[in-house]
Amino acid sequence: MPLNKLIQDGDNQDLTDERFKATFDTDALAAVFHGGEDALKRIRELRDEVTKRWHLFDALPGAHRTRAERMEDVSRKLKNLMESVGEFADFTNNLDMLVIIRDVMGIEGFPLALHNLMFVPTIQNQADDEQTEWWLMDALQGKIIGTYAQTELGHGTNLGAIETTATYDKLTEEFIIHTPTTTATKWWPGGLGTSCTHVVLVANLIIDTKNYGLHPFFVPIRDRNSYSVMSGVRVGDIGTKMGVNCVDNGFLAFDNYRIPRRNMLMKHSKVSKEGLYTAPSHPKVGYTTMLYMRSEMIYHQAYYLAMAMAISIRYSAVRRQGEIKPGTQEVQILDYQTQQYRIFPGLARCFAFNTAAATVRQMTENCIKQLSHGNSDVLADLHALSCGLKAVVTHQASQSIDQARQACGGHGYSDASYLPTLYTCSVGACTYEGENMVMLLQLSKYLMKAAAKAEKGEEMAPLVAYLVKPDITETNDKFAKMLSHFEHIARHRVMHAYRQMIEEEKQGIERDYAFANHSVDWTKAARAHTKLFIARGFVKSVQEVSDEAVHDVLTTLAELYLSYELIEMSADLTANGYLSESDVQQIRHQIYDSMRKTRRNAVSIVDSFDICDRELRSVLGRRDGHVYENLYKWAQMSPLNERNLPHVEKYLKPMTSKL
Amino acid sequence: MPLNKLIQDGDNQDLTDERFKATFDTDALAAVFHGGEDALKRIRELRDEVTKRWHLFDALPGAHRTRAERMEDVSRKLKNLMESVGEFADFTNNLDMLVIIRDVMGIEGFPLALHNLMFVPTIQNQADDEQTEWWLMDALQGKIIGTYAQTELGHGTNLGAIETTATYDKLTEEFIIHTPTTTATKWWPGGLGTSCTHVVLVANLIIDTKNYGLHPFFVPIRDRNSYSVMSGVRVGDIGTKMGVNCVDNGFLAFDNYRIPRRNMLMKHSKVSKEGLYTAPSHPKVGYTTMLYMRSEMIYHQAYYLAMAMAISIRYSAVRRQGEIKPGTQEVQILDYQTQQYRIFPGLARCFAFNTAAATVRQMTENCIKQLSHGNSDVLADLHALSCGLKAVVTHQASQSIDQARQACGGHGYSDASYLPTLYTCSVGACTYEGENMVMLLQLSKYLMKAAAKAEKGEEMAPLVAYLVKPDITETNDKFAKMLSHFEHIARHRVMHAYRQMIEEEKQGIERDYAFANHSVDWTKAARAHTKLFIARGFVKSVQEVSDEAVHDVLTTLAELYLSYELIEMSADLTANGYLSESDVQQIRHQIYDSMRKTRRNAVSIVDSFDICDRELRSVLGRRDGHVYENLYKWAQMSPLNERNLPHVEKYLKPMTSKL
Ligand SMILES: Cc1cc2nc3c(=O)[nH]c(=O)nc-3n(C[C@H](O)[C@H](O)[C@H](O)COP(=O)(O)OP(=O)(O)OC[C@H]3O[C@@H](n4cnc5c(N)ncnc54)[C@H](O)[C@@H]3O)c2cc1C
Ligand SMILES: Cc1cc2nc3c(=O)[nH]c(=O)nc-3n(C[C@H](O)[C@H](O)[C@H](O)COP(=O)(O)OP(=O)(O)OC[C@H]3O[C@@H](n4cnc5c(N)ncnc54)[C@H](O)[C@@H]3O)c2cc1C
Repeated sequence: MPLNKLIQDGDNQDLTDERFKATFDTDALAAVFHGGEDALKRIRELRDEVTKRWHLFDALPGAHRTRAERMEDVSRKLKNLMESVGEFADFTNNLDMLVIIRDVMGIEGFPLALHNLMFVPTIQNQADDEQTEWWLMDALQGKIIGTYAQTELGHGTNLGAIETTATYDKLTEEFIIHTPTTTATKWWPGGLGTSCTHVVLVANLIIDTKNYGLHPFFVPIRDRNSYSVMSGVRVGDIGTKMGVNCVDNGFLAFDNYRIPRRNMLMKHSKVSKEGLYTAPSHPKVGYTTMLYMRSEMIYHQAYYLAMAMAISIRYSAVRRQGEIKPGTQEVQILDYQTQQYRIFPGLARCFAFNTAAATVRQMTENCIKQLSHGNSDVLADLHALSCGLKAVVTHQASQSIDQARQACGGHGYSDASYLPTLYTCSVGACTYEGENMVMLLQLSKYLMKAAAKAEKGEEMAPLVAYLVKPDITETNDKFAKMLSHFEHIARHRVMHAYRQMIEEEKQGIERDYAFANHSVDWTKAARAHTKLFIARGFVKSVQEVSDEAVHDVLTTLAELYLSYELIEMSADLTANGYLSESDVQQIRHQIYDSMRKTRRNAVSIVDSFDICDRELRSVLGRRDGHVYENLYKWAQMSPLNERNLPHVEKYLKPMTSKL
Repeated sequence: MPLNKLIQDGDNQDLTDERFKATFDTDALAAVFHGGEDALKRIRELRDEVTKRWHLFDALPGAHRTRAERMEDVSRKLKNLMESVGEFADFTNNLDMLVIIRDVMGIEGFPLALHNLMFVPTIQNQADDEQTEWWLMDALQGKIIGTYAQTELGHGTNLGAIETTATYDKLTEEFIIHTPTTTATKWWPGGLGTSCTHVVLVANLIIDTKNYGLHPFFVPIRDRNSYSVMSGVRVGDIGTKMGVNCVDNGFLAFDNYRIPRRNMLMKHSKVSKEGLYTAPSHPKVGYTTMLYMRSEMIYHQAYYLAMAMAISIRYSAVRRQGEIKPGTQEVQILDYQTQQYRIFPGLARCFAFNTAAATVRQMTENCIKQLSHGNSDVLADLHALSCGLKAVVTHQASQSIDQARQACGGHGYSDASYLPTLYTCSVGACTYEGENMVMLLQLSKYLMKAAAKAEKGEEMAPLVAYLVKPDITETNDKFAKMLSHFEHIARHRVMHAYRQMIEEEKQGIERDYAFANHSVDWTKAARAHTKLFIARGFVKSVQEVSDEAVHDVLTTLAELYLSYELIEMSADLTANGYLSESDVQQIRHQIYDSMRKTRRNAVSIVDSFDICDRELRSVLGRRDGHVYENLYKWAQMSPLNERNLPHVEKYLKPMTSKL
């Protein structure tokens, strides 16, 4: 039995040859990537169950359909899924649902995406017991469909300026929900456009003209039987976006619309009949959902990147183009060093991000546990970290995906490759759940405080302890050495930004402005801090792998990751003579060496992601490598191949036939 | 009269305030950007003429329509344009047509895009007199519609492996056109999918079993009257792509399809009745069209970037989000240093690329003139340069566009901003007309030869003379100093790549493989060489500007451009002690200084691009700054706002109403 478990008769020969070269067991790496053998087994069981149910399959590739047709198709699959999922999976198990949904729904979303991600969890976390009784079961069963309506036309990042109001009316014991201006119109919530019957609305709570700040309200917007919009409500779809067009992001405005008092979510804050306000015991109570969301996002990004790697690496093994020495045979494009340089760093990042996601998920779970015991010590550290990770991972993942796409040449630009979709969906995450630059600035504020502590010689939290470490002297451990370079860079950038800022303060500039004047340098410091965290975690996880062959493969990828990221920041390495040019040269050669070593196993590594063709949705990434005949088949389905197209009949034919 | 000519009553106040701050005359900068006052005047005349003709306007924003509907709309505008353009413009004037087409058609293409860009020019350059007589007039009038069919499923970059054959049959005096394999299917040609009646087909000319290599053939594929496909031909659309979906890129295959001998384009190569082949006098005769195309592409990219800058900068002046000091007023996001850092380098690049395009267009015209006198001396230099420019400009323009898009937050992800379209169209150019990495490698081969000459002390062509210059000693001229840094970096990278390669050769590795083993370093050298060229040209053009106020603005942008690009490559500056850390620090501060200076004029600078709202097609980029109410209007047009949507009726309603 060959080590690569995907070999089948009749496959493209180049791909089969690649697979026979594997130096490790693809199942063993798959188990590492998916978080253990049990998880992998479960993923495969679920996939096999989906495979048995053709009513969960796409009717036609999305690219060939209108948006309305695609909404129809995802809704059909969704309904079928909700009716059948109980037969083979645990509906309340997050991992089960994640695996099934990414297989069945794909990555462009569906009308209940926000319902699952935000609406249901908000009810779970913020409704009191009685409210939970009223709403949760219906929500879980899709008898009510909801979303999370926070962002407005005028404000996303700066929640403090949200304008929608919920004014308490003691007489009727109701809240009057109102949209005072155009900019106060809710904008963006997923599913709101056409699908939701309800929203969790984030609005300013006003009692007796006093504003108590933002609070969540449970607000019906459409009739559950007729889907007609409630009177006093204006709601609709906001149109197409760069990606995620199977989600109907929407707008929503209210004209003095009334809801009962008990539609305010009252687990934490309360308003009594008489209009007495009770504040939450814990001001940061909302943070945990956000932390959880962010760690999940990092997983998703690592997975999108894994898909892009599977597609571009398999295709690069199948595609032969050009000769290295004229007159010899055309080579697989994967043999070009430039091609490896475009793709392999993304492959290494994929594992690095996947590990970071696992670590931060673990940290989040611990943090939530501690919070439930009233201990919020690590919250600030974790929150800052999650901001940095969100920004760095979404940015780098989308960049690597687009490089992988470009590395497929013309065919990578076709929707048949699925790579454009992977890019447009992945890059969206740079904006939602906290705009990336804003995220980096939040982390920067945290680092600013840490730097102040460092200057004063105070005790440092573990994540920032490196700020007070001296530059490491010699070590023979390759990883330890490279990690110390990461520490050096992060330390240098953070302390430099801090000292510049303090310099300005001394010249009489207020702290907020001094920070703003150096904010670009701060974001660079925040990136370096985050990359250090990712690098450390990746190295640690690789060292823990027991299967020797897999350990070797991952060691090479970790070396590639570290050397590549260091070279990207190498100006910081040669500065002030920290490293000599020849040291840096050595790190650069490490990249090329690791790429050369990775070349042999590249196809088998992406095979270990264990993503089936149905889920990959890519003609270029097919397991069997039969790319060309299937591009041809895919093209035949284009609606422009129908007869009597209006543009031809009405405009072109009259032009050409006027003989 | 204020210096900014776009001020109007009733505009968004923030935008008006920005415009009043202009330190220069927007008309004066517009003239510089558009290549002189006459050109600007002509552009405005043409725009005014289009404004009078509502039948040339979009019927509805493209985002709200299906692909077939959009094809219909562009074809309608096209037909109206062809019927009316003679009333107000010179149909044979390239500049006139460029200006009109980008206004009327937008940037996503139209069925005759390749007809204009490639089909007609190929006939003009490669048909003999008699053939020109037969075909040119019909082509110019759109009585035949054609495209350029070169790329196949299996081969784009490596033309040497193109498989389609045209075999001469002496008996019937015909060519037999044939597609021997699936991979030989022509793939990608624009307009081929549904619109073309003819193609210029690139195929292997075979006479008596001897292959004479690739030649162009004039091949009818659809009947001009009925649009039915000729028997022996298979043709259709290849489906949707990341962008340019108003172009029907297509596939094409032949089953021993016969065309008359005289359908081979015979200006340069010929086949006589008897099957005698005559070779072209000049082997590189095809190069000039390609050179011309590339210089035009660079213009287009600079223009896409200008559009993205106009959108993101105006919106950043209108958008207020967050406070620098808590409790003060929300600031325009353009005031954040991080925001400026995302956008302003793109603004500087826009001018730099626009200048590079003008320079290379000029060089191309000179080269063509020289060629017509039999002098091909500069062809190799120019060809290499155009490869580098194509790669660097398309890459950096698309990157800057996506940063500008992200800098608009959530609304930048909406198609209402037009920024997603600008990105997806711009990034396509990284692939077509020569895949970027391949382009950089072509330039590298040229630089390799130049480096060899440099080592031998031979005479250098002007574009590579810097390879033998010593590092400059002190100079007080800021620009001269920065340009010498560019030279240092390019020289360092080129010579380093060369010497590494020679080292390997000495160890017995053949030149082709030694080159391949260092190809990543070579591409880095090629980028530095190209950036030097762009930087030099930008500085030179700025120094030639006579209007003092405009000169000041452009000087600041040139300083920003130079310092930003240098910092991007700053690892090469500190290496080997070429510059000290504090020298580099100074260059970094130059970026922030130039950004601060640019801030004041930013809106007026993009106003000077003189792109009207109709052409900009962006709700965020509107001249009047009335963004929010128009986002709302735009959203109302989404087809998902129709009643009785299938996904709701069939799947969601049954779910929620099951009470
Ligand atoms: C696909 C998608 C789905 C979404 N789904 C939902 C949803 O379900 N529910 C919901 O409520 N919302 C949703 N949103 C909205 C999303 O949360 C916001 O778009 C996001 O938070 C960014 O905020 P913004 O749009 O206001 O950007 P802005 O804050 O306006 O950002 C614009 C620019 O200003 C800069 N900027 C802003 N503030 C600062 C600052 N303080 N310092 C420095 N720079 C700053 C940013 O860096 C950015 O460059 C969605 C958005 C998208 C794109
Ligand atoms: C929007 C669009 C419109 C187009 N329109 C037309 C048209 O009208 N007519 C037409 O004939 N064609 C058209 N094309 C095809 C286009 O010209 C090719 O896609 C392009 O030349 C790239 O070639 P390829 O697809 O074969 O890429 P490939 O060469 O297969 O590239 C894949 C990867 O291999 C690498 N690679 C390839 N060769 C080498 C080498 N020698 N050394 C190192 N790396 C290498 C590349 O860098 C890339 O990373 C169009 C393409 C697009 C995307």
